[in-house]
Amino acid sequence: MQQVYSKDTQVNITSEFLIIKKYLSDIGASYLSTSGINLSIGDDCAVIAANSKLLISTDTSVSGIHFLKSMPADSIAYRSVATALSDIAAMGGIPMAFNLSLVMPSFNADWMKGFRKGLQKISKEYKFPLIGGDLAKGPLQISVTVLGKPGKKILVRSNAQPGDILCLSDALGFGYIGFQEYKKHGLINKKTKPYLFPEAQISYGNAISGLASSAIDISDGILQDLSHLISKSGVGCNLDLDKIPLAASQYAKQCLEFGDDYQLLYTVPPKKLSALQANLRSCKKKCHTIGVMGGKKLIISNNNIGLLKSWDHFR
Amino acid sequence: MQQVYSKDTQVNITSEFLIIKKYLSDIGASYLSTSGINLSIGDDCAVIAANSKLLISTDTSVSGIHFLKSMPADSIAYRSVATALSDIAAMGGIPMAFNLSLVMPSFNADWMKGFRKGLQKISKEYKFPLIGGDLAKGPLQISVTVLGKPGKKILVRSNAQPGDILCLSDALGFGYIGFQEYKKHGLINKKTKPYLFPEAQISYGNAISGLASSAIDISDGILQDLSHLISKSGVGCNLDLDKIPLAASQYAKQCLEFGDDYQLLYTVPPKKLSALQANLRSCKKKCHTIGVMGGKKLIISNNNIGLLKSWDHFR
Repeated sequence: MQQVYSKDTQVNITSEFLIIKKYLSDIGASYLSTSGINLSIGDDCAVIAANSKLLISTDTSVSGIHFLKSMPADSIAYRSVATALSDIAAMGGIPMAFNLSLVMPSFNADWMKGFRKGLQKISKEYKFPLIGGDLAKGPLQISVTVLGKPGKKILVRSNAQPGDILCLSDALGFGYIGFQEYKKHGLINKKTKPYLFPEAQISYGNAISGLASSAIDISDGILQDLSHLISKSGVGCNLDLDKIPLAASQYAKQCLEFGDDYQLLYTVPPKKLSALQANLRSCKKKCHTIGVMGGKKLIISNNNIGLLKSWDHFR
Repeated sequence: MQQVYSKDTQVNITSEFLIIKKYLSDIGASYLSTSGINLSIGDDCAVIAANSKLLISTDTSVSGIHFLKSMPADSIAYRSVATALSDIAAMGGIPMAFNLSLVMPSFNADWMKGFRKGLQKISKEYKFPLIGGDLAKGPLQISVTVLGKPGKKILVRSNAQPGDILCLSDALGFGYIGFQEYKKHGLINKKTKPYLFPEAQISYGNAISGLASSAIDISDGILQDLSHLISKSGVGCNLDLDKIPLAASQYAKQCLEFGDDYQLLYTVPPKKLSALQANLRSCKKKCHTIGVMGGKKLIISNNNIGLLKSWDHFR
């Protein structure tokens, strides 16, 4: 017996690969050459022509934990990539490309169309292509690996010095407010957008990359992320809670604890602060000074809120 | 009120980060410098000093789909990385580093200890470090992104030429037999090892990288993966089913369909075949010639099995 397949109709390229071809291919393809991508989706690996240092980070979003299953598919796609991209922002880097692993319980054409739309939106905004990944069946999870090029300097968590000024890129709590609002009304509007389509602070990270001494993005609540800076740099901090701008002062505790804002928390040597602020003004970004590094402990001044918690998966 | 944390005891670095520190750090740390890793786990991104082309691939393993939850944790870790690494092998590449995203429903110290053991085992065998990733709560899934350096040549799927000989690295079906055996007895032995601890054909891929014209790894069943080669290269194939070595002839159909063998399927120009075979002999590897590329279709000779299916998540 002979079994004959026609290569033209690709009858033997089954649905998994048809889904990849139809919904997950050619996303940001126009950025392939500027990102130095020699080979993209469709082979065993993607091939990158790297002529500098590379930044790499992986971030996974789980249904019911990092997003609600009921959220629009374009938002689920967008924020899964944005949260990973936020790590590139925190290092002062420039997005190059990303890999995406999508695990989903079943195939739904409308949902996949929305998911593709979300990927296209973020790919276009940050001018970086999707170059590979995986598609499998199972409980909904999205894992994104982003690659970036360094900016002027690679901003690490471990280089804060005693006397450095602790700064914050913008107000905290818009993620929290957006999440509450979405749970209540299920709408996409000005209030819910910061949660549904969070902004990775790429241009901000770039603007400070030559001057800041250390940086981290705020994903788990400011105290958690500040404690990483402190611990990695081996220097304490005097944080003035009053100086942290909040999305809604009546929810101060929640705004500080919730995370999901993806603002940058960073330190600057005092003599570089005015140059950094000038840089930020020229690109219409804010700079909030909220503390000073020093000592061996985290000391919180003007705390009228009480003990603050941060996000932890396994507490 | 002042809230005081001691940076020394890190009381505010909560359990998620303690798990990362205790179980997911320092895996293959001795390979960081040889792999050109400037910065590893513990910052927003890892930093790679890349001075050549880079290969990158992501592979996700889902509980109940790609592995059984009851399998030993070291096997779950090992095979999640091995299946991703297999894509580097298929491009003829050399492993550099990997990122790992682990999503698990709860924390169990024994399981994490086993998981770490599996990561250490594969990291040591292929001399490449774990440089980053993510840990979250949710249904058990592991997503691995591997980075590699090219070997002599980057082997793509799309370069098979009419007249090229189709070759296979070794017998198919040991994954199937191992899986059945493990389901029956739940033991780690010679029969179950090829399923529990599959081998990524890195040294094989390297040995053929300068001479083969195209390659792919067999993860979804030989017909599926061969059809990718055919489709990408735009050339048909005459496959002699009789010539495919099998783990167990009484389960021929299952051995061919099951996948999970991670053998390499590749093509060689006829005039380079003897040089390639000599290369393989010198490193004690086999080469099975199982067909010839040509025409426009996949023609299967000596098929006594009937219609063959391949793995597809969304059929």
